[in-house]
Amino acid sequence: MKPNFTLRLRVFNLNCWGIPYLSKHRADRVKRLGDFLNMESFDLALLEEVWSEQDFQYLRQKLLPTYPAAHYFRSGIIGSGLCVFSKHPIQEFTQHVFTLNGYPYMIHHCDWFCGKAVGLLVLHLSGLVLNAYVTHLHAEYNRQKDIYLAHRVAQAWELAQFIHHTSKKADVVLLCGDLNLHPKDLGCRLLKEWTGLHDAYLETRDFKGSEEGCTMVPKNCYVKQQELGPFPLGIRIDYVLYKAVSGLYISCKTLKTTTGHDPYSGPPFSDHEALMATLCVRHSPPQHNPSPTHGPAESSPLTSVLREAWAEVDQGMAQARWWATVAGYAIGLGLLLLALLCALAAGGWIREAALLLWTPNVGLVLGAGAFHLFHMQEAKSLCKTRTELQHVLGRAREAQDLGPESQPALLLGQQEGDRAEEQ
Amino acid sequence: MKPNFTLRLRVFNLNCWGIPYLSKHRADRVKRLGDFLNMESFDLALLEEVWSEQDFQYLRQKLLPTYPAAHYFRSGIIGSGLCVFSKHPIQEFTQHVFTLNGYPYMIHHCDWFCGKAVGLLVLHLSGLVLNAYVTHLHAEYNRQKDIYLAHRVAQAWELAQFIHHTSKKADVVLLCGDLNLHPKDLGCRLLKEWTGLHDAYLETRDFKGSEEGCTMVPKNCYVKQQELGPFPLGIRIDYVLYKAVSGLYISCKTLKTTTGHDPYSGPPFSDHEALMATLCVRHSPPQHNPSPTHGPAESSPLTSVLREAWAEVDQGMAQARWWATVAGYAIGLGLLLLALLCALAAGGWIREAALLLWTPNVGLVLGAGAFHLFHMQEAKSLCKTRTELQHVLGRAREAQDLGPESQPALLLGQQEGDRAEEQ
Repeated sequence: MKPNFTLRLRVFNLNCWGIPYLSKHRADRVKRLGDFLNMESFDLALLEEVWSEQDFQYLRQKLLPTYPAAHYFRSGIIGSGLCVFSKHPIQEFTQHVFTLNGYPYMIHHCDWFCGKAVGLLVLHLSGLVLNAYVTHLHAEYNRQKDIYLAHRVAQAWELAQFIHHTSKKADVVLLCGDLNLHPKDLGCRLLKEWTGLHDAYLETRDFKGSEEGCTMVPKNCYVKQQELGPFPLGIRIDYVLYKAVSGLYISCKTLKTTTGHDPYSGPPFSDHEALMATLCVRHSPPQHNPSPTHGPAESSPLTSVLREAWAEVDQGMAQARWWATVAGYAIGLGLLLLALLCALAAGGWIREAALLLWTPNVGLVLGAGAFHLFHMQEAKSLCKTRTELQHVLGRAREAQDLGPESQPALLLGQQEGDRAEEQ
Repeated sequence: MKPNFTLRLRVFNLNCWGIPYLSKHRADRVKRLGDFLNMESFDLALLEEVWSEQDFQYLRQKLLPTYPAAHYFRSGIIGSGLCVFSKHPIQEFTQHVFTLNGYPYMIHHCDWFCGKAVGLLVLHLSGLVLNAYVTHLHAEYNRQKDIYLAHRVAQAWELAQFIHHTSKKADVVLLCGDLNLHPKDLGCRLLKEWTGLHDAYLETRDFKGSEEGCTMVPKNCYVKQQELGPFPLGIRIDYVLYKAVSGLYISCKTLKTTTGHDPYSGPPFSDHEALMATLCVRHSPPQHNPSPTHGPAESSPLTSVLREAWAEVDQGMAQARWWATVAGYAIGLGLLLLALLCALAAGGWIREAALLLWTPNVGLVLGAGAFHLFHMQEAKSLCKTRTELQHVLGRAREAQDLGPESQPALLLGQQEGDRAEEQ
């Protein structure tokens, strides 16, 4: 790599809102998105909510001349909805499906059936290894009473751990996606603190787009006002995050979002706004820059967010165990009722009613059984997350107790390779 | 690291056969295992089938003075059964639960409920980063007609991919566990070819133990002859595998197995035999050693095993789709029957029989629905595995076509960091 080397990376991210039969004007939006991507010729286009594989295949064909490499991340029953189009060859790809992803009985929310995941692509660009991640976390349906909060925190932690463990030899790390997290939400802070990723919107000096970088705005004709809840001006839940290893500078030269319509002032591509970032990677001598949020002095915000996440996951675990217990009682009750109905039917009393009640009772026992097992598994997965958080918290505290001299050996040993150079 | 540096690593692996209520003499075996581990003071003890968390907690307390660090990998409904005890501090840990792991309706086989996984521990020893993995793949219940073959191949691939992507900065990689794969089985070859891991049994010059290194032997009083099927002398399905990065030599100085009884000639610790390896890591100048199985000339065995795995996974996918279709027809049939029963009951004909048949019919529709969804998800996961295999196969072929000069840039770019130095 030459000393005056510069890598310019143009990245596009969009949650496409591509639900077959339900999303309005899907075919037209996908067609126009394809035209736009072809015209702009980004280095990478990372898409979420491409739920229909036919849409992906359509885009693949359409984008083939401009983006010869593409991948669709399959998972769960419906699919993760994640896909990527790349101008450069994809060296490797893999994915990690989140252990927790809502509840199967919340059929109207559908997330559980999607098998939400994080996809990883490894690209070799100008002698650098770029790990690009694309993800979509569980949706937030009710901010005031969010029953999925523990799951989303656990997903953010799993995402951070996946990036942490798979990017140790990467020169540049890029994460794009719909996190379904506001910038100050616990999951977002946890992800950023543990991986050291920078938020393009906060870092760039050249931003053009919607107010406060919002990616769901009331001006978008597909957005219902009630979806924005207590944020009538919009919410920012889609991100471009990045970092580079020591010896490289990475900066976001420009960041644009669409503003409720497509870039030609036509109808929007989706109910989310698209993000378009130009990143610049430059060679630089390794520097030690203990900023307030990164470097040895940072252990305090990290421990604080870890502690907060621990408490949230712990609460979720208690809740999961409570539901498993309730289901256990329901199984017992159902079995008792079944025995009673059998006795009634055998004795000839209210035979018909007994037979009629048999079906809902068998349903109760089986349903409660499945419910019990599901929440047992949920509790176990949350317990796993809590143990991992506790371990990292313990090591972060050790690092603090031993003072700055010993921190590199302890805490930084944990975050080796995750440290991003300040711009 | 000094030029004459040597790291000696004593490792213990055992599938503990710790099924509560079902495994014979469990408490006594766990107690004796704890005594043995305390006395031997290994660097790492990696255990599988510790299904009861109480057993883990008992061992944790008992081993605390000798092995201050320990971790239990929680997953699924029952748990992964994996745990580890370490004499050295554990810097980091995480886990990956396999996407495919048998069928929930095969309740008697139970694997699906375990959430089988691979656990990763990162240790820093004498300035080296050691990534230690412990795993347990889906059991093989019928070698002649193995309905889980595609799942086990997919698990072996996911395991290989997890190691590949998480160990890029590790100096030494160690994988221990019960792979439920014979040495020449497709999954085992795939894992070794893609990760470059060496088999301690094949590499060591000092082996003591059961004939041909078998880890399930007829002499073990807990092994039923029919479990060994067409291998009356025993099978080798538990492994110690390892590799080191360029610049380091790793070798297996000694490997021992128990031989149907514990090391004091008492009753065995488990129905599996324990593996005890002494590994030696030494400094060495980087060497390029294109052996028949590693180096640029290796692409042929890799492509061959990738092709074989692709075919197996493809067949599994067709099977999964067939089952999903069958279940689809069963749903239709069930719904028709339900409509018929409703009509009969409403019309007053054979009212009682109609009501009696209502329950099994609702059961049929719901069961077939769940079956359909499960096999849809299975097909999607196998399709994901097939796509990953196809991508690697494509790149391996490209590397072959371009000749040895271009191989490092292509295929070795894939396996960067995975290359192990020959002993």
